[in-house]
Parts: sequence; C-alpha cells; structure tokens
Amino acid sequence: MSQIYNQIENALQESIDALVRIYPFLSQVPNLPAIYNNKQDSNIIPIISGGGSGHEPAHFGYVGEGMLTAAISGPIFEPPKAKQIFELIKFVDKGKGVFLIIKNFEKDLKEFSEAITLARQIGIKIKYIVSHDDISIEKLNFRTRHRGVAGTILLHKILGYYALNGASLDELEQVALKLSTSMATLGVATKPANLPNHENDMFKLAPDTISYGIGIHGEEGYRTEKFISSELLANELINKLRMNLKWKPKDPYILLINNLGATTRLEELIFSNDVLQLLDIDRLNIKFIKLGRLITSLNMAGISITLCKLANPDWEEALNSSTNAPSW
Amino acid sequence: MSQIYNQIENALQESIDALVRIYPFLSQVPNLPAIYNNKQDSNIIPIISGGGSGHEPAHFGYVGEGMLTAAISGPIFEPPKAKQIFELIKFVDKGKGVFLIIKNFEKDLKEFSEAITLARQIGIKIKYIVSHDDISIEKLNFRTRHRGVAGTILLHKILGYYALNGASLDELEQVALKLSTSMATLGVATKPANLPNHENDMFKLAPDTISYGIGIHGEEGYRTEKFISSELLANELINKLRMNLKWKPKDPYILLINNLGATTRLEELIFSNDVLQLLDIDRLNIKFIKLGRLITSLNMAGISITLCKLANPDWEEALNSSTNAPSW
Repeated sequence: MSQIYNQIENALQESIDALVRIYPFLSQVPNLPAIYNNKQDSNIIPIISGGGSGHEPAHFGYVGEGMLTAAISGPIFEPPKAKQIFELIKFVDKGKGVFLIIKNFEKDLKEFSEAITLARQIGIKIKYIVSHDDISIEKLNFRTRHRGVAGTILLHKILGYYALNGASLDELEQVALKLSTSMATLGVATKPANLPNHENDMFKLAPDTISYGIGIHGEEGYRTEKFISSELLANELINKLRMNLKWKPKDPYILLINNLGATTRLEELIFSNDVLQLLDIDRLNIKFIKLGRLITSLNMAGISITLCKLANPDWEEALNSSTNAPSW
Repeated sequence: MSQIYNQIENALQESIDALVRIYPFLSQVPNLPAIYNNKQDSNIIPIISGGGSGHEPAHFGYVGEGMLTAAISGPIFEPPKAKQIFELIKFVDKGKGVFLIIKNFEKDLKEFSEAITLARQIGIKIKYIVSHDDISIEKLNFRTRHRGVAGTILLHKILGYYALNGASLDELEQVALKLSTSMATLGVATKPANLPNHENDMFKLAPDTISYGIGIHGEEGYRTEKFISSELLANELINKLRMNLKWKPKDPYILLINNLGATTRLEELIFSNDVLQLLDIDRLNIKFIKLGRLITSLNMAGISITLCKLANPDWEEALNSSTNAPSW
C-alpha cells in the first residue's frame, strides 16, 4: 500500500515541523532532531528521553508540562547520535542536572551512555534509568530480553509529575529504580512491522498466526502460534506476567494495554475486556488503566500488556494528573 | 493477518463491557447496545448519536461530560435498529426532549427517522441534525455524496458544550445547522477496509495507488490515482476544499485531520505539516487543530481533512473545553 510520505529522509524533520506548528508550547531545539517544552520552569529538573523514530507518538508526543522536558529522535528504528544527545543535555541543563530515560536496546545504550560520559566531563550532573520492562525471552538461549518497551511511558508520566513537584535528581533516580523494577510487559504481533515504502514485512508471519514477545523494531518474537481467540491470547500473556510479577489478591496495580499501531480500537477493547476479566478473577486491585497507541512500530499490528505494581500511592495521583503532552 | 477477536458476533457487547469496566462514568443502557454518561445532570438536554460499529472510537468514545449523553451501535457497518434507537431516546429523555446527531447514510437515516417518528408519537420532543460534511462525488453521476464523516465529531464536541451550558433543544438545532453547513471533509484511502477475519479488502486498490473520496464502510472512492507524495496529496485535497468553502485570507477556521485507522502517526504528522503549509500560504487563521483516529473504518489506511469555518467564536471555546469522553 502507498504510505503518505514525501522523501523518507525528511520524515523526521517534517514530523517535528508539524508538532511545533500545532502545539505552541513545543519548539525545536536549534539544529537538533529534538523538541522541548518551551514553557518549562527552570527550577524543574529536566527529563529527556528519545530513541529511533518509527514509534510515534513516542517520544515527541510525551513532551509537555508534567512529562518530558525534551525528546530526541534518530532515523527510523535508529537512535540519535551520542553527540546529538550531548547537545540536547547541554541545551536543557539549567545547572541542576538532567535526568535521562533510556530504553534498553544495545544501540540506544551505546549512544546514550557516550552522551552521559561527555556531559559529565563538562560537569553536568546526570542520573538516568534504563527501562527494561519486556519479559519476553530469546529464542536461542531462553534468556529474558529485558528490552525497554511500553512501560517506558509510565516512567515518562510518573517521573514528569515528580519533577514538576520539585523532586531532586536523586529523588527522581530513586522513583525510577522502584518503578522500573515493579513492572513487566509482554506483547504479540499479528502483523510484523514494515519500513516506509517497503511492501515486505520485516519478518514472515503466516496468516492466522501470532508471534509472542515481539520487539518494536521489527524483531521477531520467541514463538509463533496459531491464533485462536482474544481470550486465550490474554490468558497466555497474563499467565506469563503473573509468574514474573507474582501478584497476590488485592495487590494494587497499574494496567497499560499498548496497541502496536495497526490493530483496531475494536480489537483493543475486546482484548482489554478479556485481560480485565482475568485480572478480576485474580482479585487484583487495578487502580489505573490506560489503553491506546502509546509506543508503536511502523505498520505493525499487535498488542502488549504492561502491569506495574503500585508500590507508592503517589504514582496513582501522578498518572491521573493533567499534562498538555500531545499523546498521553 | 490474525485479528484479535473472540466470536465476531460478540464483538460489540465485549467492547461495551470493556468501556464500562474502564470508565466508571459510563454504563450500558439495559438490554441495548448503547452506553451513557451515568453522571449527567438531568437539566441538560440529552444528545445522542450512533451508527454501525467498526468506526471505533466513534461513537462510544465520545460519550462523556460536555459531549454525547449516550451512543448506540449496530453490528459492523450496520446501523442500530429503529426500535433500539427509540428505546434509547426514551431512556435518556428527562422531559425536555432529546437531540440526535445522525450521519447521512441511507441505512442510518432510515432507522433514525423511524425512531424519531416513534418518539414523537409518544410526545417526546426531538430535534436532530444530519451531518453531511463529505464533499466527495459519485463516480457515476458526479453528484456530491454529502455523507456524514469525520466532521460529525465536531458536532459532538461543540453541541455537547452548548448542552452542558444550558442550551435549549431549539438552540442546539440552530447551532447544529450553522455548524453542519460551515464544514467540508475530503479523504483518501491508501488501503481499503476489510471485515474482521476477511483477508480480502472490500475493494481493490493496487499498491502505489490511492482512492479519492472514500467512504467509511468500505465504499470505493471516485477516482484512483498513483500516489506521488504527501505534499501533492495535500494540495489536491485542499484545492477541492477551497473550491467548496471559498475561504478568504484571515478567515478563522477549525482543522481536523482524521486518520482512518491503519495509517501511522508519523504519516499523520507529515501530512498535517503539508496541509498546514498550504493553509498558511492561503493565510487562513487556524484557531483550532485536531489530529488523530477520530472515526475509522476497520483496517483501512487513509486520511481525511475537515475544515470548518469558525462562524462563532464560542465554538473555539467549546472545542478547547475539557471533557472526560474517552476518545476526544
């Protein structure tokens, strides 16, 4: 099918142009593929995130009051360069240091850690969290992959709230550590991602099958199975998440159901209904629910479940607090 | 590809179950495929809308304070029955009458007009608007189709605001008439819709082509062309809308860019950037912009532009006012 682009190499800049035109509180950082909240109070510790493009609305869609201060993107499925991240850190730093939210992918870590080194060399205080909510396993060695996926957006929202309310750099780190070790995500693809103007999907998936534990850059999952029903799919994923998180009745939890992009809202609702019925049977105390296309993968259809134990009641308030970030 | 359903015939009820479980202010109307805002003040004139399912988040996603009082859905791409709409009217009426927002499709009109007749027979005051924002033309006779598409959502939001602020049934009708005659929508498909668990698309569209003036029930457009670029597409659509709306420099306008469902957010932003550049060249005074998947068509990729002359400054306030409707 046709995809609505001009030159692919201009896609990122054009998406920035659209966002800053539509939302007056967003501006582009001069000479960088990054946008920032131009209304942010300089007393607030800046929080930045980023990664490849192709995951829209992540991460630009989460820049706003009470969420990210700024976000930076690379080309499709490629992280921004260390030098660019370093420039962004310098741009947002107001002398109190900068907090970074990094997704656990090898390429992202390489660029972000190099940027952190450069920033520290010139005396900028940096703290960071590496989100690693994915509990899918490697096909070859059965090790947990721990990639950073949809749960990352919970970090954006909750840390953004803490920063807005005056948290220090150290306090942000403490909350981030607690949060990132309280959550787990597992997802499936019903259709692999494909790159702009590539008709071929990034891996093969027969009709009527699904792939468990997919990545957000077109990576194949660890197991392919025939799709039977939404209910059985929900059951399989919840069983794995329960084994990981070991919840007990009445435990307070946050539930996030992420649409990988091309799944319909009707399917999203049906699947959410099945997930909620299973969690109600387990008598989980679901304090906050969010559905939607939070972090996607180009033209991929599929869905993931993130569950996060509400270890601190303030997190519920943080999630319910208002933000002008375009895509929360 | 697999689609995440259980039994297709249960899809509508399961989506209702999800919505009422997730949003405490939404309840199902007993024995009807309808949901309502259970917190609505009985002094407010109830506004209802509805149509086939398969257009999610429309219409259930627009039920909430300051938008619809209730919405009713039929099976996929089929309107609810007149008898069901009549039952809903009786349920929401608090003695002050009921306002209906109906999309201009033959099947919808038949069921809704029969329901209106039944309601009036038992003395319920009814006023209504038939949304007809689509300016695409019939392939056979070149007549404008005037179907009700994405612009309908502007009616939901603006009329909901007026009702919340105490408008009478007659006042709602006046605003609705002014609004529905101030707007025009034109869209394209890059991939046709397909029904759940049907691999085949509802019409044929060769790769690299687009179909102008598509409907939201899988109807083919009036012209198929090779896709060149987002910019040329925006130009073609804006030229047609300009001819229809005859705007002049500095005219205040509302812009709504609707993603038909399977188009990526990245494409949505790129296309919006092209549209805004063209409108800026025309020196239109764009007072409100909204992008997103507002009314979709199952697994269809494509996009539409709605432009609405801001004939009354209150409409801007109405659009910016807050609502708890899940999908505005």
